[in-house]
Amino acid sequence: MSIEVVRLTPEPGQLAYAFGGREPLLTVRPGTVVELSTEDCFGGAVRTVDDLPSRVCAFPYLNPVTGPIAVEGAEPGDAVAVHFVDIRPLRDWAVSTTFPHFGALTATHTTAMLHDALPERVWRYDVDVAKGVCRFHARGGDFQVELPLDPMHGTVGVAPAANEVVMSISPGAHGGNMDTPEMRAGTTAYFPVNVPGALISLGDGHCRQGEGEVCGTAVEAAMSTVVVVDLIKGAAPAWPRLESDDHLMSTGSARPLEDAFRISQHDLVGWTAGLLGLDALDAYQLVSQAGLAPAGNVVDTNYTMVAKLPKTVLGRATAYDGIHARLRATAARYLAER
Amino acid sequence: MSIEVVRLTPEPGQLAYAFGGREPLLTVRPGTVVELSTEDCFGGAVRTVDDLPSRVCAFPYLNPVTGPIAVEGAEPGDAVAVHFVDIRPLRDWAVSTTFPHFGALTATHTTAMLHDALPERVWRYDVDVAKGVCRFHARGGDFQVELPLDPMHGTVGVAPAANEVVMSISPGAHGGNMDTPEMRAGTTAYFPVNVPGALISLGDGHCRQGEGEVCGTAVEAAMSTVVVVDLIKGAAPAWPRLESDDHLMSTGSARPLEDAFRISQHDLVGWTAGLLGLDALDAYQLVSQAGLAPAGNVVDTNYTMVAKLPKTVLGRATAYDGIHARLRATAARYLAER
Amino acid sequence: MSIEVVRLTPEPGQLAYAFGGREPLLTVRPGTVVELSTEDCFGGAVRTVDDLPSRVCAFPYLNPVTGPIAVEGAEPGDAVAVHFVDIRPLRDWAVSTTFPHFGALTATHTTAMLHDALPERVWRYDVDVAKGVCRFHARGGDFQVELPLDPMHGTVGVAPAANEVVMSISPGAHGGNMDTPEMRAGTTAYFPVNVPGALISLGDGHCRQGEGEVCGTAVEAAMSTVVVVDLIKGAAPAWPRLESDDHLMSTGSARPLEDAFRISQHDLVGWTAGLLGLDALDAYQLVSQAGLAPAGNVVDTNYTMVAKLPKTVLGRATAYDGIHARLRATAARYLAER
Amino acid sequence: MSIEVVRLTPEPGQLAYAFGGREPLLTVRPGTVVELSTEDCFGGAVRTVDDLPSRVCAFPYLNPVTGPIAVEGAEPGDAVAVHFVDIRPLRDWAVSTTFPHFGALTATHTTAMLHDALPERVWRYDVDVAKGVCRFHARGGDFQVELPLDPMHGTVGVAPAANEVVMSISPGAHGGNMDTPEMRAGTTAYFPVNVPGALISLGDGHCRQGEGEVCGTAVEAAMSTVVVVDLIKGAAPAWPRLESDDHLMSTGSARPLEDAFRISQHDLVGWTAGLLGLDALDAYQLVSQAGLAPAGNVVDTNYTMVAKLPKTVLGRATAYDGIHARLRATAARYLAER
Repeated sequence: MSIEVVRLTPEPGQLAYAFGGREPLLTVRPGTVVELSTEDCFGGAVRTVDDLPSRVCAFPYLNPVTGPIAVEGAEPGDAVAVHFVDIRPLRDWAVSTTFPHFGALTATHTTAMLHDALPERVWRYDVDVAKGVCRFHARGGDFQVELPLDPMHGTVGVAPAANEVVMSISPGAHGGNMDTPEMRAGTTAYFPVNVPGALISLGDGHCRQGEGEVCGTAVEAAMSTVVVVDLIKGAAPAWPRLESDDHLMSTGSARPLEDAFRISQHDLVGWTAGLLGLDALDAYQLVSQAGLAPAGNVVDTNYTMVAKLPKTVLGRATAYDGIHARLRATAARYLAER
Repeated sequence: MSIEVVRLTPEPGQLAYAFGGREPLLTVRPGTVVELSTEDCFGGAVRTVDDLPSRVCAFPYLNPVTGPIAVEGAEPGDAVAVHFVDIRPLRDWAVSTTFPHFGALTATHTTAMLHDALPERVWRYDVDVAKGVCRFHARGGDFQVELPLDPMHGTVGVAPAANEVVMSISPGAHGGNMDTPEMRAGTTAYFPVNVPGALISLGDGHCRQGEGEVCGTAVEAAMSTVVVVDLIKGAAPAWPRLESDDHLMSTGSARPLEDAFRISQHDLVGWTAGLLGLDALDAYQLVSQAGLAPAGNVVDTNYTMVAKLPKTVLGRATAYDGIHARLRATAARYLAER
Repeated sequence: MSIEVVRLTPEPGQLAYAFGGREPLLTVRPGTVVELSTEDCFGGAVRTVDDLPSRVCAFPYLNPVTGPIAVEGAEPGDAVAVHFVDIRPLRDWAVSTTFPHFGALTATHTTAMLHDALPERVWRYDVDVAKGVCRFHARGGDFQVELPLDPMHGTVGVAPAANEVVMSISPGAHGGNMDTPEMRAGTTAYFPVNVPGALISLGDGHCRQGEGEVCGTAVEAAMSTVVVVDLIKGAAPAWPRLESDDHLMSTGSARPLEDAFRISQHDLVGWTAGLLGLDALDAYQLVSQAGLAPAGNVVDTNYTMVAKLPKTVLGRATAYDGIHARLRATAARYLAER
Repeated sequence: MSIEVVRLTPEPGQLAYAFGGREPLLTVRPGTVVELSTEDCFGGAVRTVDDLPSRVCAFPYLNPVTGPIAVEGAEPGDAVAVHFVDIRPLRDWAVSTTFPHFGALTATHTTAMLHDALPERVWRYDVDVAKGVCRFHARGGDFQVELPLDPMHGTVGVAPAANEVVMSISPGAHGGNMDTPEMRAGTTAYFPVNVPGALISLGDGHCRQGEGEVCGTAVEAAMSTVVVVDLIKGAAPAWPRLESDDHLMSTGSARPLEDAFRISQHDLVGWTAGLLGLDALDAYQLVSQAGLAPAGNVVDTNYTMVAKLPKTVLGRATAYDGIHARLRATAARYLAER
């Protein structure tokens, strides 16, 4: 069986800034490979250290996403799977910035304080895809260091429930701006379908990011990305889930951060119980001893925590009937044939 | 130069249940290796699945710690270093439990709700040190699985500032019950000295724990532990710091969880700035892209987050003048001679 | 000058369930009196103690609002004022309920826990407008007590910024479901205008509610309500503000609750500084000693705090050039002529 | 029966800075009137606007309390009642300040940020007890305003459980620095007894304070205070409770602020259920509609919320067998005879 491959390269005017409230740019059958491009979170407007985002960007035209992509047959109650085959920076540079009243170590509009904003500053990274690194240059001195490339998407999600239209900078039960480094090539993301077609969008590529995305932005880059999109009937998770070759992951996006933690752990406990036939307390115990709990972001309108379980504890149990392995195989075939 | 080695094996009546307010059991010179034993967090009273902690344990006699150990010459403003050489379970079993109104996915005395408590349940793990595993047995079914041993101490700290006496189950700026799996053999922990002698205590050994310690307890075990204790004059950190061969780590213990995150990241940004000669914004940027942010505990009276920086970004810079490497060397000599 | 009075009585099919994303039902000139009706938060479907909301209501068709009402000339950057002239229960009964996983003393979908939901229960209150009371009947016993009527609207707001469409059950910078008892007759509410016409909607009438709306719902009632709608050019507040004869009030809606508190206090400090010609620190001091800080709701998707300053400290200074007094006068004329 | 009256006027060297860990200064029989004096939270060291607290005060010698006072016969499991008869400023001035990294609208050591501290500033109030006012003078301009005196104690409590010694600046289940304006003359406070004698201490007098104590300090003053101390066998509340002529009040002190809210509401629901013979859900409903929820402090190491129920809903039910009324009567006799 041949793989269906389609391409989605939106014009600037076609970029979206929200999840929900918009017709699909593309409709695909389950199992389709989509080759797409995404702009960086600044819409490409921050190109030098003098391009302060508060000057060159205009709210709410931040964090553009590519999409939506409708999946044929997706109905509320289903899950859509987005498997990341490849995420590749499009330029030989990337940028990161502070932004007034945004970030974890600054007064914000919600953690409101009487301080003046921290200084706005832009860092421009050199990106060397061949070498697999991006280079940090200090602005206040001569220090430089290479950091490994680990390309990922900060923002992936579907149209929200209740007909809401949510800015692309917000994460939630629909996915969105979760900003977890786990959203890298090789990972499958599962989202609940809230509207017919699911309406998947993605953007906010990062050459890499630390956990927590402390200063508010990552190493932001336009990306050339390949995903496989699939459908799992009747399997809607309450919150986005991820699967890599090594881990099952549940996400939670909320404030305060302990509620994001609770959501993610609660979902992982339920998922584990279902896969292993455990009661809730046994799964609670097992996750408590075997799980990992890294921060996604602690800066966005909701904070994101990730709950990770090593698949070694699962034995032969597989999530969603082994779809991750099948998507990995599809990806391998696609890459071999490309 | 020979290594000074002393032993501390407290009688049950000598165990402490708090940090502060108590005379040292032992006074050592900086650089001394201390071989010690610790009881588990239940005081050894939970031995079978029928030993419910609410029946066999009596508040406040929970989470006993071994100590305090005074360090000669330690004065307020200094740092003490506790390097973990070896942490070894003392028994071939360990236990974990839920506990009424304690844990991340239950109503508690502070996250107060109208629900009845979740059921109290004990899990008894088989511990096989030679094989390096502990075995989980489900209580509600037949499922079993082996998990890797990764022994660590949940509770390590010093006498608090301001003459406070703080229950050993609380984490804070003095350390205490941080419950991070990073506190394993090979790690050096740095604490601020608040009183003459620092008064180090430790306990709450875990055969392993997941990040977040979701259900409230880990795989709890009595331990035979070896540490090297050292002194760094005038170098008091604001909050406990850790160093492994690969990472610098700052901790923060507070509620809500985002404040624990902020504390840990703020400290790591300052530490990084100092080591690399960066200004605060450059260090903020570097940590934002290179750092990790796992949860310690999200169940204790304060929650603990850990901020980790790979030492690869440090180049030739070393923390505290390279003390971690020297303590590693001491540990290696001790282990070779043992 | 005569007062312009218009009436808005939406058909059930005209009710809205969100702020944003919808054409106005009515367009009025600034200064217009609007007589309108609102349905209760259950859409009128909970009429007896046997009508459990999880059975008779269907998500997302909860908390219907009447509107939107467009205000001629309102542009982004302006403020609209909504002065409450009269709020009168339409029926001689009202209801309140618990609802699964909703409320302050229960596990919720975000404060996720392993507990089963608390029981769902309906209370039906007798409402006696002439006597000014509503009567509580215990469900688990014979206890009854009369509580004073204090009619108010839980939900009042405008179309959100950034083209978002937000469920009517969420409060935010656009207002919405703030659930503060301060939103009673005699109060003027000020909202930022985010879209042309502002697009005011309101609903969720309460015969009364306690501060915090602890169990998740108030004494819910359909209302016959009269408001005066006005426009203040160029005066957009960052967050909704309220004014009564006695107090200036700022609101903040966020999680955790301390961020809602910070937002509200930060806004009140800035407002006070502006009105009295104080610098920020002097206003901070004055608000700290003179202000009140009651909870609005601690149950909705965002929590709401109110920061109140007695107008006695203002001397002759008035907010927005005395518009509250003028709207009070309009209301008095309307009531006299009705 | 004559009233027993004793006096407690500690020397500066006798002041305490913690709850717990200290022998009583005074032992009294239940029912005794205690006339005592308290120093202000700065130990009297801030006397002019040039006395910056960071210079004239030395950590941890902040917030001195008078006591402890042992109550004869008080045993763990009992409640002690502290009825405030009179609270009178001792001087004709009082002070308030900002303090570096302390307050609700500033970065703090736990809400850690990269901002420099806000400026430290002192305000000196004129206090006129006869006129019943204190006068605010702006520091950055000429504005002045009189605020009503409403004297109260920010800090009242007992020795903590588990042999802890807790700084007097922390509030908790033992009371301490709750900083609620409800702690005024006419109020009875109830505390759980954790150690024999209860060991009551109090201090931190305020000429008045706003709810939330936003800037971190109130109008701080040394006080001449009269209390009646009493004992209620076997009636230990989980958290401090207050009673005025008009309201029952439960307190909760925790972070985040919603947990302080939950604790206070949970306690008030249970208290109401017990007094009226309601089941928990009926009491939850009644408190939800009838209750008030003002902030105490949102600045201390724990935040404090107060849950208030009007006594009008209680009918003939009285708390603790009517002890508040009896203490009011004792106070009236004392004042008549003084």
